[in-house]
Amino acid sequence: MTEKLKLAVVGGDARQAKLCNLLANDGHKVCAYALDKATLSEYVLQIGDISTLTQKFDCIILPVPVCSDKNRLNAPLSAYTYHIDELFSLFPPGQTVIAGRVNNDLFTTAGRSGIRLYDYLEREDFTVLNSIPTAEGAIEVAMRELDTTLNRKKCLVIGFGHIGKLLSSYLRGIGAYVTATARKFGDLAWISAYGYESIETSKIIDSLSKYDIIFNTVPALILDEKTLSHVRGDAFICDLASKPGGVDFNAARALGLHTVQALSLPGKCSPLSAAAAMRDTIYNILDEWRD
Amino acid sequence: MTEKLKLAVVGGDARQAKLCNLLANDGHKVCAYALDKATLSEYVLQIGDISTLTQKFDCIILPVPVCSDKNRLNAPLSAYTYHIDELFSLFPPGQTVIAGRVNNDLFTTAGRSGIRLYDYLEREDFTVLNSIPTAEGAIEVAMRELDTTLNRKKCLVIGFGHIGKLLSSYLRGIGAYVTATARKFGDLAWISAYGYESIETSKIIDSLSKYDIIFNTVPALILDEKTLSHVRGDAFICDLASKPGGVDFNAARALGLHTVQALSLPGKCSPLSAAAAMRDTIYNILDEWRD
Amino acid sequence: MTEKLKLAVVGGDARQAKLCNLLANDGHKVCAYALDKATLSEYVLQIGDISTLTQKFDCIILPVPVCSDKNRLNAPLSAYTYHIDELFSLFPPGQTVIAGRVNNDLFTTAGRSGIRLYDYLEREDFTVLNSIPTAEGAIEVAMRELDTTLNRKKCLVIGFGHIGKLLSSYLRGIGAYVTATARKFGDLAWISAYGYESIETSKIIDSLSKYDIIFNTVPALILDEKTLSHVRGDAFICDLASKPGGVDFNAARALGLHTVQALSLPGKCSPLSAAAAMRDTIYNILDEWRD
Amino acid sequence: MTEKLKLAVVGGDARQAKLCNLLANDGHKVCAYALDKATLSEYVLQIGDISTLTQKFDCIILPVPVCSDKNRLNAPLSAYTYHIDELFSLFPPGQTVIAGRVNNDLFTTAGRSGIRLYDYLEREDFTVLNSIPTAEGAIEVAMRELDTTLNRKKCLVIGFGHIGKLLSSYLRGIGAYVTATARKFGDLAWISAYGYESIETSKIIDSLSKYDIIFNTVPALILDEKTLSHVRGDAFICDLASKPGGVDFNAARALGLHTVQALSLPGKCSPLSAAAAMRDTIYNILDEWRD
Repeated sequence: MTEKLKLAVVGGDARQAKLCNLLANDGHKVCAYALDKATLSEYVLQIGDISTLTQKFDCIILPVPVCSDKNRLNAPLSAYTYHIDELFSLFPPGQTVIAGRVNNDLFTTAGRSGIRLYDYLEREDFTVLNSIPTAEGAIEVAMRELDTTLNRKKCLVIGFGHIGKLLSSYLRGIGAYVTATARKFGDLAWISAYGYESIETSKIIDSLSKYDIIFNTVPALILDEKTLSHVRGDAFICDLASKPGGVDFNAARALGLHTVQALSLPGKCSPLSAAAAMRDTIYNILDEWRD
Repeated sequence: MTEKLKLAVVGGDARQAKLCNLLANDGHKVCAYALDKATLSEYVLQIGDISTLTQKFDCIILPVPVCSDKNRLNAPLSAYTYHIDELFSLFPPGQTVIAGRVNNDLFTTAGRSGIRLYDYLEREDFTVLNSIPTAEGAIEVAMRELDTTLNRKKCLVIGFGHIGKLLSSYLRGIGAYVTATARKFGDLAWISAYGYESIETSKIIDSLSKYDIIFNTVPALILDEKTLSHVRGDAFICDLASKPGGVDFNAARALGLHTVQALSLPGKCSPLSAAAAMRDTIYNILDEWRD
Repeated sequence: MTEKLKLAVVGGDARQAKLCNLLANDGHKVCAYALDKATLSEYVLQIGDISTLTQKFDCIILPVPVCSDKNRLNAPLSAYTYHIDELFSLFPPGQTVIAGRVNNDLFTTAGRSGIRLYDYLEREDFTVLNSIPTAEGAIEVAMRELDTTLNRKKCLVIGFGHIGKLLSSYLRGIGAYVTATARKFGDLAWISAYGYESIETSKIIDSLSKYDIIFNTVPALILDEKTLSHVRGDAFICDLASKPGGVDFNAARALGLHTVQALSLPGKCSPLSAAAAMRDTIYNILDEWRD
Repeated sequence: MTEKLKLAVVGGDARQAKLCNLLANDGHKVCAYALDKATLSEYVLQIGDISTLTQKFDCIILPVPVCSDKNRLNAPLSAYTYHIDELFSLFPPGQTVIAGRVNNDLFTTAGRSGIRLYDYLEREDFTVLNSIPTAEGAIEVAMRELDTTLNRKKCLVIGFGHIGKLLSSYLRGIGAYVTATARKFGDLAWISAYGYESIETSKIIDSLSKYDIIFNTVPALILDEKTLSHVRGDAFICDLASKPGGVDFNAARALGLHTVQALSLPGKCSPLSAAAAMRDTIYNILDEWRD
């Protein structure tokens, strides 16, 4: 992105603050709004006057997720609260807006006002780039929680989507034994092709007692009470699936299993890389739009 | 597949012959037709009477590709020729048939006769499993053609589809430096996530002189005359894309470049694994169909 | 080790305590002495009476390092202090003793009393097994300290001994770019053979500004003031060399560099694996001795 | 090596011929002797007059191995034969000479005449660099011999020296399952640390029937008649150990086992890389000698 852009970054947490700095670093003109409690680089313009958002920007950048509840902007680094529809009513027609986890209502609002609204989470580039800190974060969590090395541990990775693929690759890379699971024959073929052991997700119960470490990436109750009863007492379970997650945590507690629900790892473990994933996706969107 | 099946394998080359043996080995009852010149295991029943195909089989297995030209069965291991429509007219309604590279006409024929016809090539499991011998075969070809090791060679893999993904992984695994290309931002993100260098396919010309070995997997004329003029004189080019391929071979010859068009690697380099990929896909199809 | 042994574990920290449990778990008879503040498995016999050590054991196991200062047993989990020579004077002639970082005086003492004394640190098996938690621990430290992922970071590993070899392998395994350094041509050849970039340790200054993360494994002042002045301001330095280490920490501080001295990683990050490394080495020593 | 040298390359096969060209390519003055049937680059001076060797060169480069039988220079690319002692009698005192597989008699001859004689095979750098084409060559041989892919095959690598280490790494890199064997506990620890399965070489017989492919790197009769009787009938054995090798080939034949004795792989599979390994080692020797 050699062209210099005029960008507004509105709301969000530490990742969004770091994003301001990364964008300013690249030479773009960056206005920050609803980030009044964040410490930003001197090259970022903190704006207090909401009417600034009626100007045309090359892009207005909202957080992931865009709302903290149904209608309120996700803005933990602001002293104030903002109604999302109110914000959208300010944006001029034709304005490009990028946000994360956009619901249908908001797409409707945008459509009515002629606003070009993109959702990070519907893009493969963002999903992949954001899976890297998740997979690395999972390894960091396991290293921190365990009094053993991961080397030579028998690891089970449940699900072979974006996170499962990278996590399997990284685990083997540090000398762990990897078995991955999938439901679809195509994914099972991928697991084999990379040289991991493969089992069908629905059949894990039969071999579950073999594993030292179990990572779940599937957002469904895979590790229910019955399944958990087959896990070895000294195993470690790390649930990476978004809430409500894939583990019956009450049952796990009752069984005395060592279990961690590891959520929002990109923001917690690698906020700068997570911000860079947003930046790269923004550039890609603006690039495509131009063609 | 614990259940014993009644299967007919009709036509095809050495892979199809090996497939007969693999299936018989698993305990199934296997009839071979239009394979009269193949030497098969004693447990496979060679049938000469075409009317046998009017019986109901659990599955009738045709070759990949199913036709050698528009209407003729691909049957290089038979002394006879067979019209594909004639064969289909024998199959009873409801018969399950698996074949490779099925054209629309044949799907129509099958539809009209109530035949359940599946194409291997539309299945992710087969495509992945068949990419393994292609990627390994590409490495074998490069090892055979070059008077150097692949270790520490700068390799460019054009295209990050099934073959590109596996080939990149295997090349790095033997100590080569890998740069992979893609057109889509999502694929470029995958390339980075696995730790390879990434460039956009459309921009390879700028850095092409860096590479010792260039593998093309994209079925489009990527390496045209102008692009080839940027390849180093001592580089090696291996084209894996199906005909007409991705290299202007006349231009490459005129430039004195060392170039190989490596086609049909699974059948040439690893026919037994290629047959096993067919067998696994057949089992998967019959499994799904049952559920 | 199927034969059941009579073992005494004397002194040491949490690793040594875990070692008691591991050995008892394998069915051996384990007496613990100078571990009076440790909570041990019920199958380990805590002994208070020093005269028990006059009995013949299959092996008496002392800590790594064996002394906390010149003459005192390293026994942080005991309320008492012990003179090392006094202990040795109790052991019967012919007794097998294993300890870590044994100095010449102690070898002399042992030799005079007819005691078979082995030093863990002179054994390749222990050194390798103990390097695994060090290499993994280095990755854990970097993950914890950095607000970025390690993926795609340019990492420099100074020194290609046991830790350097494993750390390079693990770093590449999680998608980092690895350059390793060595002094000897043979080690530089190994670096190339594994597909890493190689540079001579004495020449790192020229390219030092390229690296995002620098791991030092060489116990010599490699990163002195002048060399540090070539490190990028946003780089991270992790010193793994034992004290006094390989980094001029005052100079690093003055330059505002992000630097961590990561010592004793096996005991801190993976005490159970560190204890298992001791156990395996003990079994190997007793095995060899038998042959 | 920026300094321009005056070098004589005497005798040897295709590797030695390629070495002439590589050295001339680097700008050195290269005289070739006893290579009269080789086609060399125009920048290499073919000399016919043996008295030229009485001049002082920066280095005289003899082949690997230096003798074809006890006293004759290994010179398959010459129409003539040369007595090794006669050659040495020409070299001036203080001359640096590099050769491969030097026997004691020749070292004595050199010592008496004040000649600095180095053996490639006693150097770690050459041994490692020469193991790369051996390990890759072993993979090429296996790919060529087998009608299956190596991916997911259970491979046994007997011996964890230079070749065993690299071969294990490359095999896993292309998706094979690797078990490696060693005799020493230290090497067994290395095998584990890299994440391979390990077994003691003396105990392979118990699990030998598990393996699809067996690579032997140990120059001792490991796979004798009794051991071979435990190998699966459809397994492939590749013996990489120098003659007489590690396999009882008569017994293997009697058992109908698919066995290949793969000798001199660097020269056969990757002569240019093998020549480059020689060149790099020569530069390293001259470098060290200078310090």
